[in-house]
Amino acid sequence: MNDNINAVRLTGQVRIVGTGLLGASIGLRLRSLGIDVVLDDVSPSSVRLATDLGAGRATGVDDNPVLVIIAVPPDVTADVIAAELARFPEAVVTDVASVKLAPLSELRSRGVSLVNYIGSHPLAGRERGGAISAGGDLFIGRPWVVCRDEETPAWALALVENLALDLGAVPIEMSPEDHDAAVGLVSHVPQIVSSLMAKQLASAGDDAVRLAGQGVRDVTRIAASSPELWIQILAANRDAVVAILENYARDLAAVTDALRDVDAPGARRVLAEELAGGNAGVSRLPGKHGEHRRFASITVLVDDRPGQIAKLLTEVGELNINLEDMRLDHAEGAQLGMVEFSVLPDVADGLIADLEARGWRVHR
Amino acid sequence: MNDNINAVRLTGQVRIVGTGLLGASIGLRLRSLGIDVVLDDVSPSSVRLATDLGAGRATGVDDNPVLVIIAVPPDVTADVIAAELARFPEAVVTDVASVKLAPLSELRSRGVSLVNYIGSHPLAGRERGGAISAGGDLFIGRPWVVCRDEETPAWALALVENLALDLGAVPIEMSPEDHDAAVGLVSHVPQIVSSLMAKQLASAGDDAVRLAGQGVRDVTRIAASSPELWIQILAANRDAVVAILENYARDLAAVTDALRDVDAPGARRVLAEELAGGNAGVSRLPGKHGEHRRFASITVLVDDRPGQIAKLLTEVGELNINLEDMRLDHAEGAQLGMVEFSVLPDVADGLIADLEARGWRVHR
Repeated sequence: MNDNINAVRLTGQVRIVGTGLLGASIGLRLRSLGIDVVLDDVSPSSVRLATDLGAGRATGVDDNPVLVIIAVPPDVTADVIAAELARFPEAVVTDVASVKLAPLSELRSRGVSLVNYIGSHPLAGRERGGAISAGGDLFIGRPWVVCRDEETPAWALALVENLALDLGAVPIEMSPEDHDAAVGLVSHVPQIVSSLMAKQLASAGDDAVRLAGQGVRDVTRIAASSPELWIQILAANRDAVVAILENYARDLAAVTDALRDVDAPGARRVLAEELAGGNAGVSRLPGKHGEHRRFASITVLVDDRPGQIAKLLTEVGELNINLEDMRLDHAEGAQLGMVEFSVLPDVADGLIADLEARGWRVHR
Repeated sequence: MNDNINAVRLTGQVRIVGTGLLGASIGLRLRSLGIDVVLDDVSPSSVRLATDLGAGRATGVDDNPVLVIIAVPPDVTADVIAAELARFPEAVVTDVASVKLAPLSELRSRGVSLVNYIGSHPLAGRERGGAISAGGDLFIGRPWVVCRDEETPAWALALVENLALDLGAVPIEMSPEDHDAAVGLVSHVPQIVSSLMAKQLASAGDDAVRLAGQGVRDVTRIAASSPELWIQILAANRDAVVAILENYARDLAAVTDALRDVDAPGARRVLAEELAGGNAGVSRLPGKHGEHRRFASITVLVDDRPGQIAKLLTEVGELNINLEDMRLDHAEGAQLGMVEFSVLPDVADGLIADLEARGWRVHR
């Protein structure tokens, strides 16, 4: 972050158009920073709910924003961007739609001047929409893509990047093309894959669904998402999505063929390659809830008392090791807990030796 | 539960063959109930780890079990069942393999007497195997399928159902055929769907995977599972799995075709039906989605320095709160880490207040 960016830190009025999950969550956080937020939506009852929740005040005739944030469904995003640019020619206008190329192409084809427009996309959401699910912490630690184009002045770009920082998000500059290909892969195709898996459960017997565990629950969690919204998203990003679905279908056919004649030469090799490909893919996911495969994992057994874990952590702190991840598990019935540390591989051996010297039971 | 079942509550020795995740978890829980558990495995170091964890004592020449529990990979399950029935003719023998028809057919074709054998399958697991991931609470509230056949005496069935109850699981009687069709739908096909989604990520650019959110993480979590184990499971249940994959592939082709020409008449209706089918399917799953709903989750933001986390843990230890789970996450690019605590709901408010009073930034 440089001085130039700090110089354009948000201070004026922010106008949010669309008070669903994203719009209301942005408003909640900006209000907590003391920023003047006005809220607009085609549904007056939606604005009322969002103001009730503390996401800002209702729009009036005297709105005078320095920044307009458009958080409306993808189908109408281009229309609303054009309308807001016309109504507030001094303001910077951004949107949070999950597809970036389609609205931009549409605005360009209409000849709209886009000097004051910067597309953006916070990678945050919940399977339940609406202001009622909103929270000011929705964006904390999440990537926030900012799509700079050749017309964007630096101060306007900085304003949007500072918005992301104010919301606790991590701004990432990408082209609209790269963005759409990326979200096709990490968001849109996973949605289809999940929905179609869940669809197979719709006609299942009660006995079968009784056996469902955390695996199928996780795979199908996002299948609860709104079809209306997703039809718009998928349609707006169809080229990128279809290309990935074609690869997926090829892999699916390979697995199905291999299972049909599983004792044929090469059949188990095909299954192994497809499943190992899944191992390789999931290890690419950064951060939360995946396994940090680039780190070494060390498990320490501790007595299941609060003081013991604090003692262990204090000692690890004394060893001046940087922990990349840490996890506590209780082995119920085992009278002990397990603390799993992830550390850089080159410090793992030393850490194990140090901990064992201090009397801890360590497993790699 | 009737008197007859109580009368055969487990009291004698239990022998567990296979000390991976399931075998060690069963041992941990049975040991905490005071039951004599002996552990056997083809790998002596695996037995050593499991005994270290407290899952039982190592097998000896004088093993004298009333119940043998076989928790070995599917490919060798039938062999081990036959061997244990021959070695301990007075014992009831059960297995926990995730496919029930294939081992039964194999044993029948060999002419093995199955009077003392009852197949079972606890629907519990983790994406990481091994005794190191074991916990005596693994089976709590989980379904435990018991496959009765015409030869099974009632007292032997009751012994296995009581094992399930002792482990906190819910016994469900099913035929091997119904079981295999059900797990094909709620476990085996979700594994393939997840692995193939993850495989698409393997060759993705770094920028693309940076945008990954909780949705794709959940869809691909189980893709970290062992290919070796899953090839065995899928091969053993291939008929049921292929039938479901064929339906899945038809739905996938319908979505892909609709997206290719999304403005054609009926295309959006197809998308709506497929996505709404996913809504309907996910709503059939019993219970809550997501993690640790029986616990309250509290997130504390900390500066990304080793000493800070130890300080937090020490203070939580001083507050004498029993942590049910704990997780450390780094928000990439943000200069902070997030420590997520799971605690019993009735202590959450007090913990938040105490931590805030000590100056920590806490989110619920």
